[in-house]
Amino acid sequence: MRQKVVVIGAGYAGVSFLKSLDDECLRLADVTIINKNSYHYHSTMLHKVATAENSGQIMFDLREILHPEIKIVQQAVTDIDEKNRVVMTESGSFCYDYLVVAAGFEKESFNVKGIENSVFIGSYTQSSRIAEVIKLKFSQAMQNQTGLKIAVCGGGLTGIEFVASCANMLKRKCDFYKIPAEISSKFEVYLISSTPRLLTFFSDDLSKKTAKKLEDLGVKILHDTRISSLDKGVVNFANGSLSADLIVWTAGIKGASIVSDSDIENDRSRVKVDENLRAIGSVDRFYIGDVSAVSNGAGGYYPPTAQIACEQGVYLAMQFRDILKGTKFSKPFKFKSNGTICSIGHSYATAQVFGFEMAGFLPSLLKTIVEKKWNVKLLGLKGAFL
Amino acid sequence: MRQKVVVIGAGYAGVSFLKSLDDECLRLADVTIINKNSYHYHSTMLHKVATAENSGQIMFDLREILHPEIKIVQQAVTDIDEKNRVVMTESGSFCYDYLVVAAGFEKESFNVKGIENSVFIGSYTQSSRIAEVIKLKFSQAMQNQTGLKIAVCGGGLTGIEFVASCANMLKRKCDFYKIPAEISSKFEVYLISSTPRLLTFFSDDLSKKTAKKLEDLGVKILHDTRISSLDKGVVNFANGSLSADLIVWTAGIKGASIVSDSDIENDRSRVKVDENLRAIGSVDRFYIGDVSAVSNGAGGYYPPTAQIACEQGVYLAMQFRDILKGTKFSKPFKFKSNGTICSIGHSYATAQVFGFEMAGFLPSLLKTIVEKKWNVKLLGLKGAFL
Repeated sequence: MRQKVVVIGAGYAGVSFLKSLDDECLRLADVTIINKNSYHYHSTMLHKVATAENSGQIMFDLREILHPEIKIVQQAVTDIDEKNRVVMTESGSFCYDYLVVAAGFEKESFNVKGIENSVFIGSYTQSSRIAEVIKLKFSQAMQNQTGLKIAVCGGGLTGIEFVASCANMLKRKCDFYKIPAEISSKFEVYLISSTPRLLTFFSDDLSKKTAKKLEDLGVKILHDTRISSLDKGVVNFANGSLSADLIVWTAGIKGASIVSDSDIENDRSRVKVDENLRAIGSVDRFYIGDVSAVSNGAGGYYPPTAQIACEQGVYLAMQFRDILKGTKFSKPFKFKSNGTICSIGHSYATAQVFGFEMAGFLPSLLKTIVEKKWNVKLLGLKGAFL
Repeated sequence: MRQKVVVIGAGYAGVSFLKSLDDECLRLADVTIINKNSYHYHSTMLHKVATAENSGQIMFDLREILHPEIKIVQQAVTDIDEKNRVVMTESGSFCYDYLVVAAGFEKESFNVKGIENSVFIGSYTQSSRIAEVIKLKFSQAMQNQTGLKIAVCGGGLTGIEFVASCANMLKRKCDFYKIPAEISSKFEVYLISSTPRLLTFFSDDLSKKTAKKLEDLGVKILHDTRISSLDKGVVNFANGSLSADLIVWTAGIKGASIVSDSDIENDRSRVKVDENLRAIGSVDRFYIGDVSAVSNGAGGYYPPTAQIACEQGVYLAMQFRDILKGTKFSKPFKFKSNGTICSIGHSYATAQVFGFEMAGFLPSLLKTIVEKKWNVKLLGLKGAFL
């Protein structure tokens, strides 16, 4: 009987794992990917989807990118039975010898009341719905000659990249419809950040450059502002509030709820893993990507990023031939972050890469290259460029 | 009040129309596309999806290919109320001033009994499901050391391209799993064709070349064989039958049922249109693609092909500025077929193009160029090649 490997989730971690498996593994085992959608998407580029300002391919059909011998099941996972080694979905259950959980992230509300009054840049579907909502509200505003106010809650990477994209989109639309300045000035984007300055892991100088560029695009930034609750069309702070036609939540993420709903010990839906990415104490269950908590060797965990997700996928795939043959792991998982690039519009970015800080077109180009590198991984050189 | 244009269906015809609309039209009118899926796909390449032998991009996210000002509604259309100019979907209704129906094709069963015992290469979803079924049946056959017999009903373009793809897939899989010859010879593909020779619009010689190439790939062709009915795992003929592990229906298509279900006069779900592609007698409803019946000037209609669908879309878009401004059509729709290319595997095709007949690698390359040209239309030069 051939061994069965089940992978849950086709985000960066899951796809990175599947794309890195060698033929020998696929001959040794039946590999099945279970994913809610029939496609994978660049989740770091969802701000472009949410503003309909796409450039380049963001969504990839799984059948087009995965090895033909990998089975694809388009289903939402409802439960994992670790004891009997079964993954349950709405339409059937799947036995496994090895399970790779790469179920991705969900919205973290930090217990803010009224969170349902906001939209979340989470999945591809959620993001394209945001784009359609903005389009509709813009049409109405244009007909009624009123304005449109978008409030973005959360000044992290996603929030910043989204407001920049948003400001560019509003400008493009106003130009397209030749909207006069007295009306177009009523189209506003607010970024609400809880910290005194943006991206606190950047230096003070780089942080200021980031804010400056956003303000040049017309974004209004509320620094050091903690959100106490949301009402319909209103963001409430400790002292004051902001009304908005659309409230977008970008304040945080946690691991997928399939993890917190299961019996396994977890912290904000992230599962502590050993040096081989197995859930502590388990021999057959691996957690990678946003659902895994990897010790950073300094008492904490690495933050969940696309980079670590991809590297976990590659590491695990490289080990998998040994795993299937029952031999020992050849090496532990090690991670070193390459840094962070924050895109602000099409051709500007601020970045801290390999210990250097940069701002301008160069880091923006670098980000495009990183994204393109992923496309090459997914489609092959020929597919990505031809 | 801005005018409203609603387009139903994002296949070749609908997308070709939307991609050819100019900015002026998008400023003059709200344009909404209503489509069952959030994506468009190359329907002439579905045989590759059905065998998981994809090469290149077949599925395109609508948001990635359409102008950002076009509204996208992912819904199935349930009814069209021509009198009140409303399109109904499961989740709401949409008023229009102009309607473009490009709803595509469905399976034509020709009243063959037991059609539900076959699968149909119709939509992207149907096709990828076929790929998963084949994969599953192959795994079982491999475990049990038995064979696998696939019967394809219908010797038209889709049938031929699919059996070729299928034969290649089985060969690749047998090689991949190092299956010995005595077992791999039990993996068989049958093509059942009702005509004495394949593709009767080809010359006798070209038709023979097509059949020869298929047989070289290991396909068994039953010529001149009319299917009387299907049972579970059995295809019945006038005298005899063929058992099969999977029956695939490629015998014919008709226009989408939203057309035959409506009050409008139609023939096999195709609506007779005037020289401006309006339903005869209508001023605000256009039918393009597989749901339209365009007179060929010789008493019949042009057959529904991707080529005519694309050209109808372009023609209509070019006229649309005049339509929105209420002025007259500048010219009638004219069509001249460029011919037919039939792919047989990756690097061989038979073709009748611009009156010439060809077989070999050249027409295969030509087909790739035609497909690539469509990608360029969808993504732009940069998107298609970078």
